[in-house]
Amino acid sequence: MSERISMAQGAGGEAMQALIKKYIIRYLGAANGAGGAGNNCEVPLEALDDAAVINDIVFTTDSHTVKPIFFPGGDIGRLSIAGTVNDVAVMGAKPIALSFGLVLEEGFPEADLEKILKSMGEACKEAGVAVITGDTKVVEKGALDKCIINTSGIGIQSEEMRHNLEVVGKYRKMACRWLVDSNLRPGDKIIVSGTIGDHGVAVLSAREGYGFDTRIVSDAAPMNKIIEKILAVGGVVSIKDPTRGGLANTLNELAEKSKVQINVREEKVPIKEGVRAACEMLGIDPFQIGNEGKLVIAVVPEMAEKVLAALRSTEHGKDAQIVGEAAAPERHTIVMMETVVGGKRIIEPPIGDPVPRIC
Amino acid sequence: MSERISMAQGAGGEAMQALIKKYIIRYLGAANGAGGAGNNCEVPLEALDDAAVINDIVFTTDSHTVKPIFFPGGDIGRLSIAGTVNDVAVMGAKPIALSFGLVLEEGFPEADLEKILKSMGEACKEAGVAVITGDTKVVEKGALDKCIINTSGIGIQSEEMRHNLEVVGKYRKMACRWLVDSNLRPGDKIIVSGTIGDHGVAVLSAREGYGFDTRIVSDAAPMNKIIEKILAVGGVVSIKDPTRGGLANTLNELAEKSKVQINVREEKVPIKEGVRAACEMLGIDPFQIGNEGKLVIAVVPEMAEKVLAALRSTEHGKDAQIVGEAAAPERHTIVMMETVVGGKRIIEPPIGDPVPRIC
Repeated sequence: MSERISMAQGAGGEAMQALIKKYIIRYLGAANGAGGAGNNCEVPLEALDDAAVINDIVFTTDSHTVKPIFFPGGDIGRLSIAGTVNDVAVMGAKPIALSFGLVLEEGFPEADLEKILKSMGEACKEAGVAVITGDTKVVEKGALDKCIINTSGIGIQSEEMRHNLEVVGKYRKMACRWLVDSNLRPGDKIIVSGTIGDHGVAVLSAREGYGFDTRIVSDAAPMNKIIEKILAVGGVVSIKDPTRGGLANTLNELAEKSKVQINVREEKVPIKEGVRAACEMLGIDPFQIGNEGKLVIAVVPEMAEKVLAALRSTEHGKDAQIVGEAAAPERHTIVMMETVVGGKRIIEPPIGDPVPRIC
Repeated sequence: MSERISMAQGAGGEAMQALIKKYIIRYLGAANGAGGAGNNCEVPLEALDDAAVINDIVFTTDSHTVKPIFFPGGDIGRLSIAGTVNDVAVMGAKPIALSFGLVLEEGFPEADLEKILKSMGEACKEAGVAVITGDTKVVEKGALDKCIINTSGIGIQSEEMRHNLEVVGKYRKMACRWLVDSNLRPGDKIIVSGTIGDHGVAVLSAREGYGFDTRIVSDAAPMNKIIEKILAVGGVVSIKDPTRGGLANTLNELAEKSKVQINVREEKVPIKEGVRAACEMLGIDPFQIGNEGKLVIAVVPEMAEKVLAALRSTEHGKDAQIVGEAAAPERHTIVMMETVVGGKRIIEPPIGDPVPRIC
């Protein structure tokens, strides 16, 4: 029997990475000569980073298939704006415009469409970024689960980013002048901007068949203004938003691409009691659940405390913590955690996200 | 009972325009203050053009839901590259990069995915444009009809476009320095680059329950290189690709936004015999069916013959014809056709596309 696509291949973990390498890089990558992005492409498809960079334009895309489309603390509209604004901003760019591609199932309630668009508009205002182009499709009933929203985004280098690069330059060289995954070096401090797992648990709690009681709400939020603040401090070498596959996936991607080991202290990683309890009940690892308004930030050690202070002065960053640091790899580029009960364990990249369709 | 979304609202005609104005412009447009694209946004969301322009970057998006995903002459992969390359190029920009957002149904055959990606790669090579960023999602069986591909694209002003603007400038002023829908003035000649209706008929012929025999194949093709060629001649004020809603919709959009009447001679509009026969059999109007490798071009009258000659020297433009011209509106901004049997009739914008899900 021929191979067929599985849910895990879309859930942001190792299975998805394998699929991407097998087909997408093969047929659309530069080696295939497809198009040929050329020398102006500083961060190409092959980097598999949060966004690409060509001609000094940061460019990214995300299709949103979250289920259900309304959940505690947000909806697919807010998520679609926050997700793409964040993917542009974590590269060190100022997002300047978004596109949206709406696919609706026939029979979709207009009132729900209105709620979603209103929510998108509000998230745009919060981020200070406009949707400037779009596309709308309708498919027959049964051809789609309610609605899918794709948002793409473009951004340009900001004043704050230029300042940030100058500050980094006082301490060391950076291979890429964008905040890519491969920029970490041994000694860099790793900051997590707030409590992890909120979004995944909030989405799951709203899902049919679960419906456990929790006060956890999604953290979905545009983080571009917070990123501007910390870049204005300076010393940041990489930022990543731990969405699908959660913190475990993000730390492993950073470690692998930067060829470093990352050491994390479990006690420092902020997790809400409700998230911890929900995860225990469901037997899932909060490190592997997606977030939509959190950042993992790598900073040169000399600037880590200042960046942390700037983060903590913001509403979305008030729970920020330095959770660990990059180190020279002993053997492999692993993520090692000192657990709260003592001892160490390796944080593996998840195969998929234990909560599929969180975005 | 509350209002629900209908197929017509996604089919590129009047029903879709109404939906967009009612909700999308209202909640995401500049008047709402959502984001505030600001003064650098030369072609905003409200223009409802093929693409938007901000900071001299042309930006567009399209979600592809074509059914079936493989059809004579193409597939969803080729379509997704051609569609977005064309939306950037018809603004007078050189497409420099594409994104793609893939949503797959669980159980989708990997062999089909490979075929689609291979086809995307080939279309990229043909266009000379690379996919530089992407996103992959998988949803459960039953949540999606096989696969949806969103492609967004960015472009920048080309040498050829600068030359084109200089040539136009010899004859008259152009309000916008991009090839927007509102640039037509009375006297401009209207060129159609080739036979119309091929794509819609090809898709329909491959659909379950139809399966009529035809040798018509889809025209889906990236048209950016042909556009470069005609801009190198100069005198072009507007280009549009007549996709959903076909030529009827495209001409009406141009007439309405430019506040002109457009007079078309039916005998001049190139249509293949097989398309005409299929349309008669099915009772649909070839003027209302979508195309994916055709252009409607408005040219200052002085340059029309030269642009036509350049078009005809290309493979995809060999059947090009001057089909009519813009005129001062008598009462309304209508599209009037001199029919082959004599007499005139108004070409109305369609409510939807008579063949839904052609792209």
